Amino acid sequence: MRAAVMTDFGGPEVIEVQEVAKPTPGPTDVLIEVRAAAINPVDCKTRQAPRWGDRKPPMILGFDCAGVIEEVGAEVSGFSVGDEVYCSPALVRDGAYAEYVAVDARTIAAKPASASFEEAAAVPLAVITAWEALHHHARIQPGETVLVFGGAGGVGHFAIQLARAFGCKVLATAGREQTLAFCRELGAETIDYRNGEIGERIADVAFDCVGGTVFSQAIDAVNVNGRVVTIVPGVPGDDINKCFGKNASIHFEFMGSAVMNDAAPESQGEILRNVAELIDNGQLRANIFKTYTLDQIADAHQQQESQRTVGKLVVTVDRELA
Amino acid sequence: MRAAVMTDFGGPEVIEVQEVAKPTPGPTDVLIEVRAAAINPVDCKTRQAPRWGDRKPPMILGFDCAGVIEEVGAEVSGFSVGDEVYCSPALVRDGAYAEYVAVDARTIAAKPASASFEEAAAVPLAVITAWEALHHHARIQPGETVLVFGGAGGVGHFAIQLARAFGCKVLATAGREQTLAFCRELGAETIDYRNGEIGERIADVAFDCVGGTVFSQAIDAVNVNGRVVTIVPGVPGDDINKCFGKNASIHFEFMGSAVMNDAAPESQGEILRNVAELIDNGQLRANIFKTYTLDQIADAHQQQESQRTVGKLVVTVDRELA
Repeated sequence: MRAAVMTDFGGPEVIEVQEVAKPTPGPTDVLIEVRAAAINPVDCKTRQAPRWGDRKPPMILGFDCAGVIEEVGAEVSGFSVGDEVYCSPALVRDGAYAEYVAVDARTIAAKPASASFEEAAAVPLAVITAWEALHHHARIQPGETVLVFGGAGGVGHFAIQLARAFGCKVLATAGREQTLAFCRELGAETIDYRNGEIGERIADVAFDCVGGTVFSQAIDAVNVNGRVVTIVPGVPGDDINKCFGKNASIHFEFMGSAVMNDAAPESQGEILRNVAELIDNGQLRANIFKTYTLDQIADAHQQQESQRTVGKLVVTVDRELA
Repeated sequence: MRAAVMTDFGGPEVIEVQEVAKPTPGPTDVLIEVRAAAINPVDCKTRQAPRWGDRKPPMILGFDCAGVIEEVGAEVSGFSVGDEVYCSPALVRDGAYAEYVAVDARTIAAKPASASFEEAAAVPLAVITAWEALHHHARIQPGETVLVFGGAGGVGHFAIQLARAFGCKVLATAGREQTLAFCRELGAETIDYRNGEIGERIADVAFDCVGGTVFSQAIDAVNVNGRVVTIVPGVPGDDINKCFGKNASIHFEFMGSAVMNDAAPESQGEILRNVAELIDNGQLRANIFKTYTLDQIADAHQQQESQRTVGKLVVTVDRELA
């Protein structure tokens, strides 16, 4: 099959399209004919330097996928050949920048009927991150105020929509006219971070999708009994003791944990079933900023690393027709 | 009335018994004739230096109380003169080292019928801290493993019993033969911290009642999806990023927050009602290490600050009979 292979650790140029063997699904996997994939920050980080234990190139990135089931493992029930599905392939196996990918069947769900393959592929990894952050960690409640730092990014724009769909008031930070307007379209009140301080005790939940010093702003921003959730490793620990006076909590969300630690990975299939319903009800949509082909993934990585993407970058898996 | 008054910030010697005016309860308060109080680390910290905004001596410490209702505020329902009750008086008002104390009626509960006033007074502040840590923050589940750092202390010994009563497996750290044996009596498996490392991924919940570098041990000790709860301000932030790989959370418990921020203080009355049931069912008891009189509170503070108290120090409020 054709795949965009990461041939070494390094810049975007290490990715090149090659002919490689089709993956063999295990007994609990499905083999998916990939129609579309998507780009996430974790692709770029995985490409830059060793991560995830001893995994070494050559390897195939791409941790979002929408496609059609080609083969079903012997122990899999609930799915059949020909089903249209979407999922986030495991971070520690070969991914979806390819014509086929093998995926743990517990982590997949039926593709939202109203979404194209591209629209569906833009969703899984980022929406699972946002869902776990808001529902599993912060346990948001209707009527609460949720502040999303980086509201126009991949995870951020889903977080705004999930919190709004659940009945929360949403504040979002952004720093350009275009991204501020985008967050408002999704239902958030916006805070232009170029104006300086964000504020103290303005939200029940602060979701840090940016990292660095924003993490400290998130600690300041939460109310009594507040919950800070962060998804960006490398946050500074200097201000954590401020949480005592507010009886607050800090949650460290990593969506890869469920599969890598075999900690209820089926919950991610369930999240995608719930999200498919929100998509089909018109309550959530992926904003596709740009679409690429397998041959253009180096360009897609460059765009992802520019930090100027509104929503998601998608890869159409173009096939050479027989 | 007689009260042990903190006359200045400083050492235990700043506390002296004086004749002072009886407090006047507000419309939402009850006035309690104090029969027993207890000592907590927060008394000593409040005595040492300014804290809690601009509160200044003279002030009366003592944030645990059991006694008899002497007067009921005009807006209070559910309590009558003569009721035997127990509670944790607010950290920001005069406390229970005195013959009388005025307390927000939402935060009190009927004294456990099976407990003496001394036994009841030993419970509130520490048990509310342990309950909020384990149930509100960590949301312990039956069958989970809870590791209590400092299992023989005031909060720690209640935490062991609460977690056991809820169906958890409990590990506890201690560092002397006496305290190790005490923790085992309460139903914990023990870890002697003098032996060095505590371990990695050995518990679902790690409850840090010690602070300092123990906080970092608590981060190491939790499993995937683990919850660390700490109650000791001044914890180091160096290791918090280790939480990402485990999708873990850190909770900063401060039992004073509910009253000081008017954030559902009635939940603390409810906790004490639940705990009274556990006490009357024989599932929880306070270990009273030593009992003092009002005149001996300086000694009690010295013992509290020795860090060698097993369970609680109690104050019998001795009355000059008319």
